[in-house]
Amino acid sequence: MTSVPLFECVPNFSEGRHPQVLAAIREAAIVPGVSLLGFDSDSDHNRSVLTLVGPAEALLTAVFQTTEVAVAQIDLNSHKGVHPRIGAVDVVPFVPWRAATMGQARELARQLGEQVASQLNLPVYFYAEAATTSERVNLQDVRRGEFEGLAERLLREKPDLGPSKPHATAGAVAIGARQILVAFNVFLRTQDIKIARAVARAVRGSSGGLLGVKALAMDTRSQSRVQVSMNLVDYPRTPLPRVLEMVRLEAQRFGVAIAETEVVGLMPQAVVDDVMRYYLQMPGFSRDRVLETALLARDPE
Amino acid sequence: MTSVPLFECVPNFSEGRHPQVLAAIREAAIVPGVSLLGFDSDSDHNRSVLTLVGPAEALLTAVFQTTEVAVAQIDLNSHKGVHPRIGAVDVVPFVPWRAATMGQARELARQLGEQVASQLNLPVYFYAEAATTSERVNLQDVRRGEFEGLAERLLREKPDLGPSKPHATAGAVAIGARQILVAFNVFLRTQDIKIARAVARAVRGSSGGLLGVKALAMDTRSQSRVQVSMNLVDYPRTPLPRVLEMVRLEAQRFGVAIAETEVVGLMPQAVVDDVMRYYLQMPGFSRDRVLETALLARDPE
Repeated sequence: MTSVPLFECVPNFSEGRHPQVLAAIREAAIVPGVSLLGFDSDSDHNRSVLTLVGPAEALLTAVFQTTEVAVAQIDLNSHKGVHPRIGAVDVVPFVPWRAATMGQARELARQLGEQVASQLNLPVYFYAEAATTSERVNLQDVRRGEFEGLAERLLREKPDLGPSKPHATAGAVAIGARQILVAFNVFLRTQDIKIARAVARAVRGSSGGLLGVKALAMDTRSQSRVQVSMNLVDYPRTPLPRVLEMVRLEAQRFGVAIAETEVVGLMPQAVVDDVMRYYLQMPGFSRDRVLETALLARDPE
Repeated sequence: MTSVPLFECVPNFSEGRHPQVLAAIREAAIVPGVSLLGFDSDSDHNRSVLTLVGPAEALLTAVFQTTEVAVAQIDLNSHKGVHPRIGAVDVVPFVPWRAATMGQARELARQLGEQVASQLNLPVYFYAEAATTSERVNLQDVRRGEFEGLAERLLREKPDLGPSKPHATAGAVAIGARQILVAFNVFLRTQDIKIARAVARAVRGSSGGLLGVKALAMDTRSQSRVQVSMNLVDYPRTPLPRVLEMVRLEAQRFGVAIAETEVVGLMPQAVVDDVMRYYLQMPGFSRDRVLETALLARDPE
């Protein structure tokens, strides 16, 4: 039983096609005390996500090391992918986990920002709970214009830290603190990206849909289908099954079915609970009704 | 790390209405090394189920003690309930769990049978993997005629152990060994028991439905609904979501919807995995995509 505060960090790298680069990034995350809980790579998005958990100092070391490798090995000038991005290391959110506070997560974001700006010469934007201005709370605002528009944008407005011009190959980085979110992607059985856009618009909170949902259409036609890529930023109030069913309904308007879904990174157990209760209409479900979980909780002999 | 064989035992008691009797039964299960992982009681069924896990000897002690209490305190002559039963302790299945074999589970069933027959004077039927004849493999055959028909039946055929007449108040007991099953109940939003019967007949393997499903209609009209009560005896090949959707389709023929569902006892994690993959159309789901599970598996700091 330890009460050392634990944090999750989910750095997003603009690279999903070169296994050697990804191996180097993963390697850089190996730090005693830090666990790599997940690794997701997508070649259409041309993007990869590490899910790291650890105590503050060790986690900071791991994330800085991965950033260093990514900045050295990724060149955004030749990067093509369907996911918006401003940097080689595009987004780095810190999430307070066991015994940790949002204030501490924000402090970690600040520390990483200082280090990255001074040692790697990257422009740094703080976003979400680490934002310094209301215009930078939303990641989509921070990322507007993407890597290609960054030079012009930095002429107009200073970043939070670092130089007022993009890193030549690595662009800039958005570093933040936030609560857990669920990155939930739904593939539609069509190649018509306009349908994915219409569905994304319908379910997205900012355009009239569900409050806790951010959504973008992604062109994954290389897989003969398109994607509605979502962040469920308030999954306790806007649970995943309700979002999925709304996507299904909106896609049905076009006669299009859901092909499959995926979660990028990890999902909280609460999502599993929601799915069991919703689709099985089983209000009594709880994880201690699962044999393996109950056995784990069993008193030692 | 221990490799002591562990068994699950799920004794079913014909009592679901008197909290004091149930408390006494639970009390009797308290034996060092044995965990009570679940307790389900249903007043319509007038039946309760304990889910116990432990090593052979301790588990046998716990189950015998609960049987002793139940035989002393339950009188089947005044028992009314919608679930078929032949005894105060109606069914006692042993399930091989970690590092245990079916042969060992069968041996446990035999030992409990000997003890119960000689010390409590109960007629004992061995069923499922512990059956001594093919006519007693299926529990429904063992239970045919119920408590009320037991005296006449015992005149015609001897039980496996114990006297050839019913215990005056406790009837007889079916003791067996089997693999894990999922006890899955679906409530239909109707008070017409004939609809539950038609649905049970349609989904039940023995009458033309799904191979791995046993199903009975239960009159739970006291709750303004009826129940299709199922055992999924081969949930890897006949997974729960497919069963639920077949119940839904068959009920829809009568214009009847599903009100809710429940699992009695515990469900294996594989059921959760099936539900996530089926309803979310998420082939990539695995439990290590769940934050809490991934954290548990995390290397110690």
